[in-house]
Amino acid sequence: MTTVVYEDVPAAARRIAGYALRTPVLEVSPGLFLKLELLQHSGSFKVRGAFNRMLSAGPLTGSGVIAASGGNHGLAVAYAAKVLGVRAEIFVPEVTSPVKVAGLERLGAQITQTGAIYSEAAEAAAKRAAETGALAVHAYDQAEVIAGQGTTGLEIMEQTGGVDTVVVAVGGGGFAGGITLGTASSGSGTDAAGPRIVAVEPERIPTLHEALRAGEPVPVEVGGVAADALGATQLGGLAFEILSGPRVQSVLVSDEAIVAARRTLWERHRVAAEHAGSAAYAALLSGAYTPAPGERVAVVVCGSNTDPATLTGP
Amino acid sequence: MTTVVYEDVPAAARRIAGYALRTPVLEVSPGLFLKLELLQHSGSFKVRGAFNRMLSAGPLTGSGVIAASGGNHGLAVAYAAKVLGVRAEIFVPEVTSPVKVAGLERLGAQITQTGAIYSEAAEAAAKRAAETGALAVHAYDQAEVIAGQGTTGLEIMEQTGGVDTVVVAVGGGGFAGGITLGTASSGSGTDAAGPRIVAVEPERIPTLHEALRAGEPVPVEVGGVAADALGATQLGGLAFEILSGPRVQSVLVSDEAIVAARRTLWERHRVAAEHAGSAAYAALLSGAYTPAPGERVAVVVCGSNTDPATLTGP
Repeated sequence: MTTVVYEDVPAAARRIAGYALRTPVLEVSPGLFLKLELLQHSGSFKVRGAFNRMLSAGPLTGSGVIAASGGNHGLAVAYAAKVLGVRAEIFVPEVTSPVKVAGLERLGAQITQTGAIYSEAAEAAAKRAAETGALAVHAYDQAEVIAGQGTTGLEIMEQTGGVDTVVVAVGGGGFAGGITLGTASSGSGTDAAGPRIVAVEPERIPTLHEALRAGEPVPVEVGGVAADALGATQLGGLAFEILSGPRVQSVLVSDEAIVAARRTLWERHRVAAEHAGSAAYAALLSGAYTPAPGERVAVVVCGSNTDPATLTGP
Repeated sequence: MTTVVYEDVPAAARRIAGYALRTPVLEVSPGLFLKLELLQHSGSFKVRGAFNRMLSAGPLTGSGVIAASGGNHGLAVAYAAKVLGVRAEIFVPEVTSPVKVAGLERLGAQITQTGAIYSEAAEAAAKRAAETGALAVHAYDQAEVIAGQGTTGLEIMEQTGGVDTVVVAVGGGGFAGGITLGTASSGSGTDAAGPRIVAVEPERIPTLHEALRAGEPVPVEVGGVAADALGATQLGGLAFEILSGPRVQSVLVSDEAIVAARRTLWERHRVAAEHAGSAAYAALLSGAYTPAPGERVAVVVCGSNTDPATLTGP
């Protein structure tokens, strides 16, 4: 298995500079920072990994790129392909929200909606990639993708002047894994020093939580309000190598806590996040993770592909 | 008339540090910055001036503070009063949106809804302040308020490393006036060096445009999509002193351009602004102001007190 190490992240940062945005940080109270990654191109962090994968691959064939996605990864690959002028085929599961399908169509991607859950769409995409020779861009379990997502971590450390803890949502683990590498102060591997990583999952999609219990990635049931973006059925193998390290603490949050956090992000901070993008903040609001006095904490708000009409109301 | 000078702005910045947020800047393309002032406490820049006015006044009496407002200023004064633990009475015109009235109520202010337009609510508030001895916090025509709003300009220059142009919406002129001072490189008065200020108004509320034509502030008709936040009937006298200077360029945008800019801010950047908060961006999108090649431009997105359900759709 290919591995991914600390040094891959600054290399990715140089590669994707000018393609992905350097998203801003908002200090909402002394020592509490929101990393507003939901303001990223295509509405989520996923473009970082997509650009790094595509720009690492060298010249692409006429078949272009192919991806399977619960939505945000598909949007990101379609966006990156459009910017780079290559063809994109996107396979999405039937659960995907209309907002995300409409966004894919606007970006000019060829869309195939198939399978009840992400893994079924992914199988169909892999089969198609083998037929056409298109470059497969995985949603989380590829070294270039993880290194790309990790650039968010580099930025957090630069923009905050350093934090003790980063709170981040986990689906397949590519984003949290990348951030674990990207925030390390030096050295490769899971023994590098760096801030604590609080890896937050919905109770109804505990891929990391169950992987840590089993000692390896295992399939889990997928459900709840964040399933359209955190709905991987199993943690990625590369992510497990990183997230099973000593800096990482796994916590779970209820769907109710995620819904409340999303409302609070809008009402208090005018940040319009999707449910998955609110999961990390939910860990703080619900007390699933409670910082010590004086602890400097960055919370990553990672996606905004949502219907804004649902931000308020009962 | 009291005046307000460049040096008042850094003094205000020291006074309100820890009360108002340092809002982030997002570089959306090389040299084009969005100053995300809509993420400010209470959903608009208005808390800067409110805090600076209250903190400059010394100990407040039991009558607390009083303000009249199209909405955002009222929210800001109510928020600041709550933080500082003083009583707030807010007079708002009948046109004020339900979202804003509900927000005022949540902040514990005593609300009086009176008058068809802002100036009528302001007259009623002034009368009440004379009776009770409460500290009046004007929406725009007070030196401490203008200096407070100007701290946005200081931050823009620090966060961007300097720009050639700042694009900002104008209602009563306190925000644009403050930013003109806050971005000046040194010296007081309108002859100080600094970036060009593009002062943007809706065609249907041209307070600055008409003041510049007349050589002094004059009453204008008030209407259109941004009237609830930019609906001053006349430019402030202090603002006119500043905004009639050589650095300022007045431009008008149509309501259609404002609506389109608001949609684009959401669809492209996931920034959920109100109409008034989108007016500055509308000047760029509509071509009312066209930067030269290589020109570094900051666009201030200044308010988000809006029903998010109206961000999308037909």
